[in-house]
Amino acid sequence: MELEISQSILSRALNIATRVASGRAGLPILNNVLFKAEADKLTIIATNLEVAIQEHLKAKVTKSGTITVPARLLAESIGTLPRGSIKLTVDGAKIGVEAENYKSTILGLASDDYPELPVLDEGAAVSFTVNVAEFKQAVAQTVVAASSDTSRPVLTGVFFNTFEDDLYLAATDGYRLAEKRFMTGVDGKELEAVVPTSSLQEVIRSIGEGLEEMTLLFDQDQVKFRLGGGGEDGEIEVTSKLIDGSFPNYRQLIPKTTDVNLKLDKSEFLRMTKLAGLFARDSGGSIILETSVEKGVLSIASVASERGENTSDLKTKVDTDGKITLNSRFLTDGLGSAEGDEVDFGFSGKMAPAILREDGYNHIIMPLKS
Amino acid sequence: MELEISQSILSRALNIATRVASGRAGLPILNNVLFKAEADKLTIIATNLEVAIQEHLKAKVTKSGTITVPARLLAESIGTLPRGSIKLTVDGAKIGVEAENYKSTILGLASDDYPELPVLDEGAAVSFTVNVAEFKQAVAQTVVAASSDTSRPVLTGVFFNTFEDDLYLAATDGYRLAEKRFMTGVDGKELEAVVPTSSLQEVIRSIGEGLEEMTLLFDQDQVKFRLGGGGEDGEIEVTSKLIDGSFPNYRQLIPKTTDVNLKLDKSEFLRMTKLAGLFARDSGGSIILETSVEKGVLSIASVASERGENTSDLKTKVDTDGKITLNSRFLTDGLGSAEGDEVDFGFSGKMAPAILREDGYNHIIMPLKS
Repeated sequence: MELEISQSILSRALNIATRVASGRAGLPILNNVLFKAEADKLTIIATNLEVAIQEHLKAKVTKSGTITVPARLLAESIGTLPRGSIKLTVDGAKIGVEAENYKSTILGLASDDYPELPVLDEGAAVSFTVNVAEFKQAVAQTVVAASSDTSRPVLTGVFFNTFEDDLYLAATDGYRLAEKRFMTGVDGKELEAVVPTSSLQEVIRSIGEGLEEMTLLFDQDQVKFRLGGGGEDGEIEVTSKLIDGSFPNYRQLIPKTTDVNLKLDKSEFLRMTKLAGLFARDSGGSIILETSVEKGVLSIASVASERGENTSDLKTKVDTDGKITLNSRFLTDGLGSAEGDEVDFGFSGKMAPAILREDGYNHIIMPLKS
Repeated sequence: MELEISQSILSRALNIATRVASGRAGLPILNNVLFKAEADKLTIIATNLEVAIQEHLKAKVTKSGTITVPARLLAESIGTLPRGSIKLTVDGAKIGVEAENYKSTILGLASDDYPELPVLDEGAAVSFTVNVAEFKQAVAQTVVAASSDTSRPVLTGVFFNTFEDDLYLAATDGYRLAEKRFMTGVDGKELEAVVPTSSLQEVIRSIGEGLEEMTLLFDQDQVKFRLGGGGEDGEIEVTSKLIDGSFPNYRQLIPKTTDVNLKLDKSEFLRMTKLAGLFARDSGGSIILETSVEKGVLSIASVASERGENTSDLKTKVDTDGKITLNSRFLTDGLGSAEGDEVDFGFSGKMAPAILREDGYNHIIMPLKS
């Protein structure tokens, strides 16, 4: 293998690959990235057996070939080199890196032992071409409600699902639920797939500046995210296993109507929630929300504790007197996920879930016992 | 106690005080800040018995008094409140915090149990009024060489010392030494004092934007840093114990001349050092620097290891052939502390220290065995 490539393109690609090649999987060769050079292309591959990254970069290849190289050392040394052209030369299990005035030799491993990546059958896959900014936002608005408890794997992912010809993302940890309508009108395509949140975060970190569209391809077991169309920065494909198991039938949990219905200034509501939460650390974050038609306020109070207590009043139009106890962190997360300056907030007494509602976005929080 | 004060002033002051009041000293009351209100002033005090902070803030005091309050809870809740005026009211061991629409009560402790701060006799102290930017820089350029090994406490500090009517800062961990001439012409004042690096860092974090001058006052056991002159943001005094013991007589360690003398582009030199260091992790960071008069280069190489190896050549005017082995991290730190775009770098064979030299700044690095 022998090729020339731009330092900035290679450095960016290696930084992305190195995150996946951090080898928690126990196979030492997974700490390496796999290089494949042929025609005018260098392909860099990294995997932790859960998620795999393939990057296709433009390069001046004078001799094709393959090798695997320790990801971190290579990424750090390429990142330290000045901008300009870099020459890579493979000699046995060694890779030589040359730039003006700099010369390194890094010991690699032959590529024979590198695991085969599973192949996604693109012809049979369900595919969506989506707007990158909208994808980022939909993911951010849902992952917040996903579980970190691996004893129910299906709740640690985000559920991509079609319903009445729209595509939704949803996540729940059993205490709260976030649902985003991500695309309207998907031409009869049907999908139910749970994507690990860690893979989604990897995809988002791999998105280059200025990328506007991306493609999602789902088969029974895997999802592939295709970023970029082979321009200057090349193309990146992130492939992830899907999580086995059925996602709960969550739609029935979203209340259609609530007794108390408020339209609130989001930043004030968030401030009051955080403030009450500071005083509620001893009580597991319990804060009490109470509406008064007479006073025209939503008041938020912490449960009195050894630290002290706190009450805030938010003036607003109130339709019904009501009271509910919520976890301040969940409410903070929910408000942080809302887009607008105003949010619709509703609840129906102490036992029913509260709901933050925006066009196309629902964030449901189960009440705490009070 | 009853007073009104601006949210932004109080919030900034509490953030500074809270860092000191993080109570590693084992006395629970040190997790609190002490409030003293009298005349038109609120004084906030925090200490960990090593360093103490006193902040004097303008306030509309309607009833004088004192109390101690949990620092973190107060800082976080004041920080969450909107800008504007805040009313503080003490009732027994409780402090009430009121702002528009917000009301908190925080449980404090009576101030009787708060430790007395030692007093520095300002009349007898040696004092220097200094430029803030120069102080920050001199501290940054020296603390980097201080030791983190508490078995020789004197090396964990920065040595403020006068010599031939100039004031110097110096620090060494036994492997490297940094010395900065901080002030020239100190009117015959004499000083030898070792200030804990942690206290210096506290001082630097406490410096407000736009502050141009500060005053340092030293007595036998303590140093006081006085920041600000009581303007809008008030005045902050940071008082720290000095470290007992004599600082090594370091001046004799600074080589007056060296055999090899180079003038180098700092960023290229730094890049080459970092690059070689990446390959030197298995060998404790050992990198080999070698000059060649014939080739007109300084070459930097890592010692060959299981990872691979690396050589870089920096073209430069070379006066003498020479070779030295250094720790790449120490050289990286030294270069990172130099101010200019070019540095003077000298050494005299394998056994003598290397030196990075700028006007008023010396950074000495002991060689490694090769």
